[in-house]
Amino acid sequence: MSEFAMIERFFRPLSRHTEVVQRGIGDDCAVLSVPAGEELLISVDTLVEGVHFPANYPPAQLARRALAVCASDLAASGAQPRAFTLALCLPELNAPWLEQFSAALAADAAAYDMVLVGGDTTRGPLCITLQVMGTAPRGTALLRSGAQPGDRIFVSGTVGDARAALDFLSVVQASASQQYCLERYHSPQPRLALGMALRGIASAALDISDGLAADLGHILTASGVGARLEVDRLPVSAALRQLYPEGSARVDGMPVAWRYALSGGDDYELCFTAAPEQRNSIEALAQSLSIAITEVGEIVADSGLRCVDSNGAAVSPAAGYQHF
Amino acid sequence: MSEFAMIERFFRPLSRHTEVVQRGIGDDCAVLSVPAGEELLISVDTLVEGVHFPANYPPAQLARRALAVCASDLAASGAQPRAFTLALCLPELNAPWLEQFSAALAADAAAYDMVLVGGDTTRGPLCITLQVMGTAPRGTALLRSGAQPGDRIFVSGTVGDARAALDFLSVVQASASQQYCLERYHSPQPRLALGMALRGIASAALDISDGLAADLGHILTASGVGARLEVDRLPVSAALRQLYPEGSARVDGMPVAWRYALSGGDDYELCFTAAPEQRNSIEALAQSLSIAITEVGEIVADSGLRCVDSNGAAVSPAAGYQHF
Repeated sequence: MSEFAMIERFFRPLSRHTEVVQRGIGDDCAVLSVPAGEELLISVDTLVEGVHFPANYPPAQLARRALAVCASDLAASGAQPRAFTLALCLPELNAPWLEQFSAALAADAAAYDMVLVGGDTTRGPLCITLQVMGTAPRGTALLRSGAQPGDRIFVSGTVGDARAALDFLSVVQASASQQYCLERYHSPQPRLALGMALRGIASAALDISDGLAADLGHILTASGVGARLEVDRLPVSAALRQLYPEGSARVDGMPVAWRYALSGGDDYELCFTAAPEQRNSIEALAQSLSIAITEVGEIVADSGLRCVDSNGAAVSPAAGYQHF
Repeated sequence: MSEFAMIERFFRPLSRHTEVVQRGIGDDCAVLSVPAGEELLISVDTLVEGVHFPANYPPAQLARRALAVCASDLAASGAQPRAFTLALCLPELNAPWLEQFSAALAADAAAYDMVLVGGDTTRGPLCITLQVMGTAPRGTALLRSGAQPGDRIFVSGTVGDARAALDFLSVVQASASQQYCLERYHSPQPRLALGMALRGIASAALDISDGLAADLGHILTASGVGARLEVDRLPVSAALRQLYPEGSARVDGMPVAWRYALSGGDDYELCFTAAPEQRNSIEALAQSLSIAITEVGEIVADSGLRCVDSNGAAVSPAAGYQHF
């Protein structure tokens, strides 16, 4: 099978004409038409075998996770997903592998309403780079830099589940709680609807990939503010509480579940800030989208992140994931 | 050095605000504003160590070649370069390597008038994926699909030089002609000004990366036409003629220089088609841009590529570069 035959068979079916996509796969460039009054939002993510996923990772899972991780940046920016490119580096042309990979990619791209518009396939170590592109009305993109003292800090869903999954990636007969966390790790759900709904409501936002404490730090730096985070208020799933009961082991002075919630990455929930008067709008959003949204702290003028427990005692925020 | 420190030091200086770039490096997404009446053109290319460039390839050369190869797709589409993203996979954080890589990338990005707007840095086998983005007035992008029977086929510059370079990549004391070809291979020049000038003149276009015969084949397939290519008219550099004199060895019935010109890749010249009445405009373009443009054949209604020599005898077009 040639590279061209591979593209025709596995990837061209993911390309189609839309309002935004004037030309997809098959020319030197793809051609996008951004609707009048909108801006284009772009993000890139690379997943490398042996670094971001283990050898022999199921191709369907790889496709889903890669697209979700990348689309999560669109969610964090409030963008409507539109298109993506795929740079795929493969040790060999393996038709069954490509069949599963492209079928899963097609399914989730359709679910997110994204069209594959181009890419590159090369021979080399297994590695996948996706660039996702979305649109938002001019000036409405959610940024990291808008947090103001007095704003409250919110987190969607629950955090720490994906970190817990790392503790039992190789368990053969996983319990229901373990399975829940593994699913959260392998198949993150980008909060796309929430991100778009937060335009005009959130003052700053990002997605939690490296851990809440580390990622919130980016908002603080970009906004030139500090924060007070109440770790006991962090949204922790029933599965995580069941796996790491509060009275059992502690890490750095915190129950494991809350430590994971504070510092574990890979959940791809949104962390955002908003003025207190937006609380009702946020509650309404949580209801209409059936997403838990939890207030976990407050933005303050003094720089730095202060984590405190319910007694007001300081808790050390562990460092986030180090990429090198 | 952390990933964030690396980005701040080596890559953020390549990001700045422009008419198109509203937000560059530093948020979950970059934000681009496409000028009214224009479309966004996008292309992606990956270069893998050991596949597209050898181990210990000089980092400055890698940066220049990667950007040129990718920008060449913008040239082929007639796009004005605007922005690019960089996904860089590195075995380790090597500051001197990054210093040279980013300095060269900065210099050529400035020369092409492109701004780095985002990316991802990951640990793994050395591999670089660039996505370039440009703009063109709505409906003016040069495509592969517009060639019509009767159109003439044109090639910019000279072809075959980069293929010849592969014959003496490891020569220590290269001759002037060898140096010329090596330079053509290591530092291709994307024909950006020519691509933009060909809007409204060329009926179809692409850049020659896999070899003229193979790449012209893409125009023929996309346009549903055939072509008659006169191989003796192919533009061959003085260096290539000097290195492979016409009377010496032949490959597949052709002098080596012309075989390389027909089938060798990596020159990144443009191949385009245009109606015969555009000849004067094309000649004027060649003059004003100081680029040789050579007519090398004609588009015909019958499908397939027929290569003929000056006696009208058929010549076999060799296959282009196989990626797998």
